[in-house]
Amino acid sequence: MLFEFRDMIDPAKLPKRRKYLNYYLLGFTDGEGCFSISIKKQSDTRYGWVVDPVFHVTQHKDNRVILELFKRVLGCGRIIPKPGQEEKILQYVVDNRRHLSEKVIPFFKKHKPIAKSKEFEHFCRIVEALENGEHKKAEGLKKLIIMAYDLSDERKHNVEEIIQEIERRAGASETIR
Amino acid sequence: MLFEFRDMIDPAKLPKRRKYLNYYLLGFTDGEGCFSISIKKQSDTRYGWVVDPVFHVTQHKDNRVILELFKRVLGCGRIIPKPGQEEKILQYVVDNRRHLSEKVIPFFKKHKPIAKSKEFEHFCRIVEALENGEHKKAEGLKKLIIMAYDLSDERKHNVEEIIQEIERRAGASETIR
Repeated sequence: MLFEFRDMIDPAKLPKRRKYLNYYLLGFTDGEGCFSISIKKQSDTRYGWVVDPVFHVTQHKDNRVILELFKRVLGCGRIIPKPGQEEKILQYVVDNRRHLSEKVIPFFKKHKPIAKSKEFEHFCRIVEALENGEHKKAEGLKKLIIMAYDLSDERKHNVEEIIQEIERRAGASETIR
Repeated sequence: MLFEFRDMIDPAKLPKRRKYLNYYLLGFTDGEGCFSISIKKQSDTRYGWVVDPVFHVTQHKDNRVILELFKRVLGCGRIIPKPGQEEKILQYVVDNRRHLSEKVIPFFKKHKPIAKSKEFEHFCRIVEALENGEHKKAEGLKKLIIMAYDLSDERKHNVEEIIQEIERRAGASETIR
């Protein structure tokens, strides 16, 4: 039995082995988790926009223990009230890029998403590109934003306008230079 | 590798062992599945109401393979377009009571829900009670309906009205008898 979790849950309620728990969490993620890439306006950055990868799992506060299991197994992240639904809904969130690339991604490369395989693949490519600093040049940043929009088009901002702003700012900084 | 699923998915995309796949499906169920008890008006039955346990998992049609995995592993059920969202959403449904008690319930007694443990426990008790014919008497039916309402109160019908109708019909049939 998984006694290492006994401070949060009766181990009899858990799968018997750590490996089984890992696959349980994989299945839970494939159903309820999200490898999301948000594109945020941030005027004080060079190009005005940032690419922000976040892994999160949402759950009713009655099931907080599931989010605690994620936090313990992945060894990172935090549990917060879900913005806008603070009363009832919690979210397990990992947005620290080092934690994403050193903890979350390796876990899901070992225990591969099925339903969210494409979403996860994009997520890995974007985190890796950010780790390589590709977003520091206008071309790289534009490529990442377009990739994120390909993955999900339910977005607040219009991609053409973002690209135009990046190009305008890149042009301005060229001129200054 | 799980070659027995190669007609529906590349086995390289699946967990390596059947046991891992079982825990994956458990996790998926704990996130996205539903052990539901619907209470339906059915005027041509003795008391006018029936208790209908259904296990279902909902998923976008792009992820049909997940539902196929459930169907294959549990060895029962069917995949249908979700009523009202036929275009995009599919549902894996098991509503046959024998399949619920001989296949679905034993699977989840072996691979126990964590987030949905209470929901599953109620589900088992209700299926078992139906198997024992407890719903055939007015008292038993009332007890089952109250138990279902305790589990979830997001329901169309008012429980007092249902109970009153059962009692009225039970009283009428007593008088006739």
